[in-house]
This record gives sequence, C-alpha cells and structure tokens, in this order.
Amino acid sequence: MSTKNIIFLILLLFIPISLAAHFLEWGELIVFITAGLAILPLAAWMGAATEEIAVVVGPTLGGLLNATFGNATELIIALVALKAGLVDVVKASITGSIIGNLLLVMGLSMLLGGLRYKEQTFQPIVARVNAASMNLAVIAILLPTAMNYTSKGINEQTLQNLSLAVAVVLILVYALTLLFSMKTHAYLYDVGVADIEEAEEEPHEKPNVLLWSCVLLVCTLLVALESELLVDSLEVATSKLGLTALFTGVILVPIVGNAAEHATAVTVAMKDKMDLSLSVAVGSSMQIALFVAPVLVIAGWIFGQPMDLDFNPFELVAVTVAVLIANTISSDGKSNWLEGTLLLAAYTVLGFAFYFHPV
Amino acid sequence: MSTKNIIFLILLLFIPISLAAHFLEWGELIVFITAGLAILPLAAWMGAATEEIAVVVGPTLGGLLNATFGNATELIIALVALKAGLVDVVKASITGSIIGNLLLVMGLSMLLGGLRYKEQTFQPIVARVNAASMNLAVIAILLPTAMNYTSKGINEQTLQNLSLAVAVVLILVYALTLLFSMKTHAYLYDVGVADIEEAEEEPHEKPNVLLWSCVLLVCTLLVALESELLVDSLEVATSKLGLTALFTGVILVPIVGNAAEHATAVTVAMKDKMDLSLSVAVGSSMQIALFVAPVLVIAGWIFGQPMDLDFNPFELVAVTVAVLIANTISSDGKSNWLEGTLLLAAYTVLGFAFYFHPV
Amino acid sequence: MSTKNIIFLILLLFIPISLAAHFLEWGELIVFITAGLAILPLAAWMGAATEEIAVVVGPTLGGLLNATFGNATELIIALVALKAGLVDVVKASITGSIIGNLLLVMGLSMLLGGLRYKEQTFQPIVARVNAASMNLAVIAILLPTAMNYTSKGINEQTLQNLSLAVAVVLILVYALTLLFSMKTHAYLYDVGVADIEEAEEEPHEKPNVLLWSCVLLVCTLLVALESELLVDSLEVATSKLGLTALFTGVILVPIVGNAAEHATAVTVAMKDKMDLSLSVAVGSSMQIALFVAPVLVIAGWIFGQPMDLDFNPFELVAVTVAVLIANTISSDGKSNWLEGTLLLAAYTVLGFAFYFHPV
Repeated sequence: MSTKNIIFLILLLFIPISLAAHFLEWGELIVFITAGLAILPLAAWMGAATEEIAVVVGPTLGGLLNATFGNATELIIALVALKAGLVDVVKASITGSIIGNLLLVMGLSMLLGGLRYKEQTFQPIVARVNAASMNLAVIAILLPTAMNYTSKGINEQTLQNLSLAVAVVLILVYALTLLFSMKTHAYLYDVGVADIEEAEEEPHEKPNVLLWSCVLLVCTLLVALESELLVDSLEVATSKLGLTALFTGVILVPIVGNAAEHATAVTVAMKDKMDLSLSVAVGSSMQIALFVAPVLVIAGWIFGQPMDLDFNPFELVAVTVAVLIANTISSDGKSNWLEGTLLLAAYTVLGFAFYFHPV
Repeated sequence: MSTKNIIFLILLLFIPISLAAHFLEWGELIVFITAGLAILPLAAWMGAATEEIAVVVGPTLGGLLNATFGNATELIIALVALKAGLVDVVKASITGSIIGNLLLVMGLSMLLGGLRYKEQTFQPIVARVNAASMNLAVIAILLPTAMNYTSKGINEQTLQNLSLAVAVVLILVYALTLLFSMKTHAYLYDVGVADIEEAEEEPHEKPNVLLWSCVLLVCTLLVALESELLVDSLEVATSKLGLTALFTGVILVPIVGNAAEHATAVTVAMKDKMDLSLSVAVGSSMQIALFVAPVLVIAGWIFGQPMDLDFNPFELVAVTVAVLIANTISSDGKSNWLEGTLLLAAYTVLGFAFYFHPV
Repeated sequence: MSTKNIIFLILLLFIPISLAAHFLEWGELIVFITAGLAILPLAAWMGAATEEIAVVVGPTLGGLLNATFGNATELIIALVALKAGLVDVVKASITGSIIGNLLLVMGLSMLLGGLRYKEQTFQPIVARVNAASMNLAVIAILLPTAMNYTSKGINEQTLQNLSLAVAVVLILVYALTLLFSMKTHAYLYDVGVADIEEAEEEPHEKPNVLLWSCVLLVCTLLVALESELLVDSLEVATSKLGLTALFTGVILVPIVGNAAEHATAVTVAMKDKMDLSLSVAVGSSMQIALFVAPVLVIAGWIFGQPMDLDFNPFELVAVTVAVLIANTISSDGKSNWLEGTLLLAAYTVLGFAFYFHPV
C-alpha cells in the first residue's frame, strides 16, 4: 500500500472524530478542523472512483463524468453552504478556487517541477484554448460585479436576471468546450491522455465498475454529511480564529476543496508531465468558472436563496490579476522554478490582501 | 446577378418606403426600421465603389481612400447624430463598433470558417501590429473616462481639452500606421492584398472610375439623408421598444453601420482567407478608434456640440474586455470554431449586460 | 575624449552653480533646474563606476553591485524626498519611473533603432521572464491601492501593514530573480553579457578598482547633496511652473533620475543590440518595482515617515496600461519603428492626462 493511501486511511478516522465532536459539543473550532480533514481522503477517492469508472464507460461518457464530478467536493460544500444561506462564503469560494488553482496549484507544480528539471515544456496550443475559455468565463462571471460597481443604483432583481442569463451562456459554452475537446479537436488533447495512462502508478487491470460506483456513492454521501458539519461550524470557528468570511471563503475553503487537485498536479509535475499538471490546474478552474459557478446561480434561484454574481470588487481585482499573470506565464509553453515562484508570490500577496481586507 | 445583389436591390426599396413613412407619419418605429434597412445596401455599395476607385488610382492614394471612406457610413450616421445633440448615442456607437468588430464580426468569421476548416491560420505578425495599435487606441480613448472615474471633481473643460489632445495624437498615429502599412513595411501586408484580388468574385476588368465615383457620391448623399431619418426617429423608436440610449448606441447602431464589414469578413473566412477576414474586422475597429473617434471629437468641438471622450465607465470595462479576449484569441495566428464561439459568447454576455444596464 | 564626456564635463559646472543659486538665493526655480542638470553627469558616472567595479569583482558580486546601485540616483533622490516628507512625490516617482522606462525609454529605443533597421529582434524568452516578474511586481505594488479604492474605510495602519508585507515579499522575489539570472539560468542571459562587452566603445583594460570606487563614492555624495537642493526647491519651483506634485513626480523626476538609462538604451538600440537595450529599460523598471519601491516602504517605516503603497488610483490605471502595452509589443521578440511610436504615443497621452489631472 502506498504512503498516500496510508495517510488517507488515517485521515478517515476524522469522520467519526468530527461526528463525535459535533454531537458531544467539543466546540465549533474542533468540528471545523476535523470535518475539513475528513473531507480530504473522501475527495481523493471520489476523484479516483470517477476516473476508474470513466475508463470503463468509454471516452465520451467518461469525459462527461469527469467533467461533471471533477469538482464534486467543492460543488457539494458550496450547495450545503448555499442552503445554509452563506451566500458570501459561496461566492468567495468560487473566486478563491479560481485563484488557488491558477496561482497556488500551478505555482507549486512549476516550482517543484522546476527544481528537478531546468526547463519544462508543455503544449502551448491547449494552454491557449484553455486560457481563452478561462478569460471568457472570468469576464462573464465578473461582469455583473463590474456593472454594479460602475453604476450606482442597480436593483437586486436586475443583477439576479443578468446573473441567470450569464449562467445559461456559460453552461452552453462549457458543453461546447467538452464537444471541442472530446469530439471535434480531441487530437489536440491526445498527449494529455497518454500522460494520464502513463501516470497511473500500478499496471492497469480492468476496473470493477460496480465496486467503484459504490465507492463514489459512499464518498459522495459522506462528503455531504461532513460538509454539513463544516458549514455549520464555519462561522463560529473562523470568527474565533479572527478570520473574516471573505478570507475563509477565498483562501481556506478552496484549499480543502481542491486538495486532491493540488496533490495530483504537483505529483505529475515532478515527473515532468507538465501538460497533465497544467490541464489539472487550469481545467479545474475552468470547470469552476464554466460549470460550478453557473450551477450554483441556478441552484440558488431554485432554492430561493438568491445568489447573484455580484462579488466583492476586490475579488474582481484578484481574479483578473490571477488570470493575467497565469496567462503571461503559461502562454509560451515553457516553465521554470522562477515562474512557479512568481505565481506563489502573487498568491501570497493576494492572501495578505484578503487577510487585511475589512469584511 | 448574384443573390447578394438581388437582396440589395430589394433593400433599396426601403429608401422610398422610409421617406414615405417619414412624411406620411407612419410612426417613428417604422421610420427607424426602414431607414436602417435602406442604409445596408448603400453602405455596401459605398464600400465597393471605394475599392474599385482604389484599384485605379494606385495603391497609395487608394489606400488612403480606403482608410478614409472605409467607415464612411458610421461616420455619417455619427456626424448627423452629433449635430442632433445625441452625444451619448454617438459615444456609445464608438465603443459598440469596436466591440462589435472584435467580438461579433471576428467571432462569426472564426465560427463559420471553423465549421468548414478544422484549423485556420493567419499571419500573426500583422495580427500583432494591429493588436498593439488597437491597444494604444483603446487606451487613449478610454483615458479621459478612467481619469474622470478615479478622481471626482474634474471639470468639463479639462476633459474636453484632454480629449482634444488625445484626438490629435490618435490622428497622428493613424497617419503613421498608414505610412507603415503602405510604405515602409508594405511587404508584411502583401498576403492580404493578394487575397483581396483573389477574393473578387468575377474576373476583373478595369473599373470605370467616373461611374464608380458617381455611385460613391449618390450613395453618400442617400446615406446622409437616411441617417437623418434614422437619427430623428431613434429616440422615440427605441424608447417604444423599451431600449435605453446606451443599448441602442452600443448594440443596434453598430450592427447597421457595420453590416457591410460583417458580410465581407464572414464570406472570406468561409473561403479560408482568414488574413483578409481578420484585417477587415480588426482594421475596421482600428479605423474607428484611431480615425472616426478623434474626428468626431474635433467635429463636436467645431459644431459647438462638446463631445469629450468621457464614456460610461461600464463601456470602458466592455471595450477592455473585448480587446483582451480578441488579443488572446488572435495572438497565436490560428483559429477554430470554439474560439469563434467564445468571442460570440463574450458578445452575448456583454449584450445582456448592456440590455440590463440602467441609464 | 568622446562628445558624451565633454557634455558631462560642462554639466558638472552646474554643481557649483546650483550651490551658488541656493546660498545666494537666486530663486527656487533656478536651484531646481541647475540641481537637476548637475545630477545628470553624476548619475552617468555612478553607473559607469558600478559597471567597472563589477567587471573586476567577478560576475556574482558584480551582478549584485549592479542590481543594488543600478538605480542609485533615483533611490537617493527618493530617500531625500521621503525624509523631507514629500511622500506623494516619492510615490509618484515610483510609478513614473516604471512608466518612463517601459514607454519612453523602450519607445525611443525601438523608434530610433527602427529608423535604421527595418526589423530588430531580441530574445523573447528573457523578455517573457522579465514581463512575468514585472507583472507580479506591478500587481503587488498596486494591490493596496486597489484594495483601498474598492472598499471604503480601510484604516491607515492596515494599509501600512499590508504595504510592509508586500515589500518583504517583493525583496525576496528580487533576490530570487537575481539567483535565477546569475546562477541557475544564467545561460539564458549570456547573449546580453556578450553584447555588453562588445558595446564598450574603447578596447578594454583592466579597470582600477580603487579609482572607480573613489569616483563612485564622490558621485554618491554629490548626488546626495544635489538631491537635497532639488527636493528643497521642488515644491516652490514646480508650483511656479504651474505643475502639480503628481505631474512633477510622475513625469519630471523620473526623467532626471533615469537619464543615464535613457542614453544607454537608445545608444545600443541604434547599434541593433536590442537585447541589451530592452534589458536596460525593462531591467530598470523591474529594479524599481522589486527593489527601490519596497526599500522606500521599509525606509519610510524606519524614518517614521509612514509611506504605504496607496497610490493615486489613476497611477494604477497608468501603470497597468504601460505594462500591458509594453507586454504586447515586446512579447514577440521583434520590433520596428511603428511599435516604438506606439509606445511613445502612449507615453504622450499619459503625460497629457497627468498634466490635466487635478490634485
């Protein structure tokens, strides 16, 4: 058994611990931390199960599965938080996931990969198509904020309508992106797939779909469950730590929700498979911008928890900054340790800013 | 006779209809729509006449002609609207033309071209020089807005002076751009010229300058005339449709004014002549930013209709967004249907935003 | 003796003249102008002395010397101004130096180089690493401004703390940039070094370290001295000229402080050594953003002259614009006269804006 799996099994112990902490009232802070730790292995296994099932059901259906469940953990946490009325935390976690994937995950990958290999290369074509989609998604998501910020006196209903319209456009674009990458221009992405297969650590047997489906189901249920604990304890716990809802949403929640992507991206970068590493980092933020965010807007509308796309203006600044610097660094198809460091420095500086940001 | 010409002849019927609608008072909405339709064939023939004359008078003078009359329709509509005091509509139509050319025209070209050809290529060098000029122009045009927005309490006269100074710089830059593309670095643009000649549908005879000059003159007069009808009926007609002046200026007016470019760019893209297609789209928005906009500022100053470059801040956001996404997509010298779709999606989302925008 | 040195010797006469003007009270304006002129040759010789010493002490220590003393003139002027409490002028001179290097110096180099050579090329790799570092630095420096602007009611202490945290990150990044360019990836920069050696006008003898150290010391002292005169007379002199502190800081001070870089960059560009020319221009603005600005923040904190990184929002716009347009133009590794003109036009337009800017 790999060390990774041993760590995961130990982390699983936090499921009963977090439940005990909740029912025996050990304090919100302990519930928050233990629930956060318990989610980590569940998220990783959900990812693994999705990929195993995807192998069996074939590329098209498998791609769809991956595209839908790839950010399942974040989606579940966000839906639970949305139902609980924590709209600001949900919004902040969207921008935080985008920033975290583009700066923290990509930065760590380029830094640790770059410490081993002097220069690493990747397909600039795919990087560019992704960058263009990201740009569009980020623009679309932040448009209501920009509109609200530049003209005083827009009523809530207008913002809600605009947000819904944007959400529908984004889901359509997401579907077309899948069509592009899986059907009409699949050949551009072939390198990545080869890498994924190579990257598997053990020789590959035909996976047992039934078994993995059960794993997926159980993990999904447990993540929902633990998300409730996480969300319920979130407000009290973070205020005890002296953190604002903005900082929690932008920095803390995405680190928990994206831990699996972090691990994968960094691991493959250290094996010089930068194409795969970047497609995990950028792909994940694309999924959040093009799929998770619009789904949450529509879900909020259905739940009667009006969730528009009117973010804190400083989030707009932060996401724009993250996208611009990630574009500059990834557009030439090469990376080195300094570029990784620059991304991490940008993340650190943004982290400071969100820490000091009032409200 | 081509189907295009048949459609144009039918559309010509709207000239008498619009006049009738005006004098017999059939209602502002009908005047507005019929005048809009009547302008379409006139604009197309003005373009054709300019190009025919350009062939005869030689590349230098011809280039100048094209550069000056290329956006004549828009310029005429804008001048008429400016005289009528519709300063906000004029300003909005400037940003709208830039956005429309970069997102709608380029997007449609890449989408329809991309549905036929898996991947289309174009000269990235020309794309870059154009992108740099566009960036400068957009920056210059939007600087007064940014200045006014970031510091409260700038008086109108200061904005007017700054706008005039910017206009003079832009016209100088425009002249230098022509010098660059027609004299010192004409060889970079050769491919495009070859394409233009090839793109002509019928075998080319020596055009009759006198005839085409008459066509140009007559069309110009008729466009002026129809522009008056369009502008006079604009405010009442659009408020009947429940549209704001901003939406009308940014979305409706540019679609009418740029219809000819739309048709050309899309047609040649479907023949895999992407260099020509892009140079029409980007060239047209360059002309607007570097020539039409400054001319309007100076004209406004002469007319005593003070027209500064202080746009609605959201227009600044929209143009910046359009330029950034167009740059990202065109900088690699390749296009496919997804990239076209992304541009169109960006246009759609901006369209929604302007539709919902109050004021 | 070269004409350059003759001019410098004549300019040296302004040292006694400026002192006389100060003590005999000839008026603040004369003190300001003569002190400004006196600084020019001193700055040039400080640069020359640093480079000569750098050759002897070896690449590593020499690189450090260059990196630290490269912008010594500006640093000294800024420190003197900071001590005198002219915090706004100091801040403005930081943004002004970045804008001036990226637009004015790079623009003049590309224009004058481009008038001689149809197309000039340079290493896009180095340009990209520099661009990425610049982007990060600019983002970091402007983050407190963006934060303050997007959320009303941030107290001064918070801004001060954030600025200090950002300053520490930037100095670390600067150190890592030096490590990258001098140790781990020095080979990328080799071309530049070869050019520097070639660019020396006279055959190179082993320089006399002791002599040059004395030159460095004397020049440094004199620059400090003249900076006092410049700073003391600055407020009265510029208000006599009808200029605001913002315009003085953004446009006038950087032109004096960066005159040496201007001369070098343009001279080598006219010899078709664009790599060196760009590395002077971009390198100088990188040093200001990654080293001078953070040092000033920390110095202000030590002096008890709280200097945060909260700039005028329009400075944020101007720097963003300068970085974006410089990136677009330099990212393809080619330049021509039109690109130089575009940079200069952007500088002109920004200059107008700062001239008309109230406050």
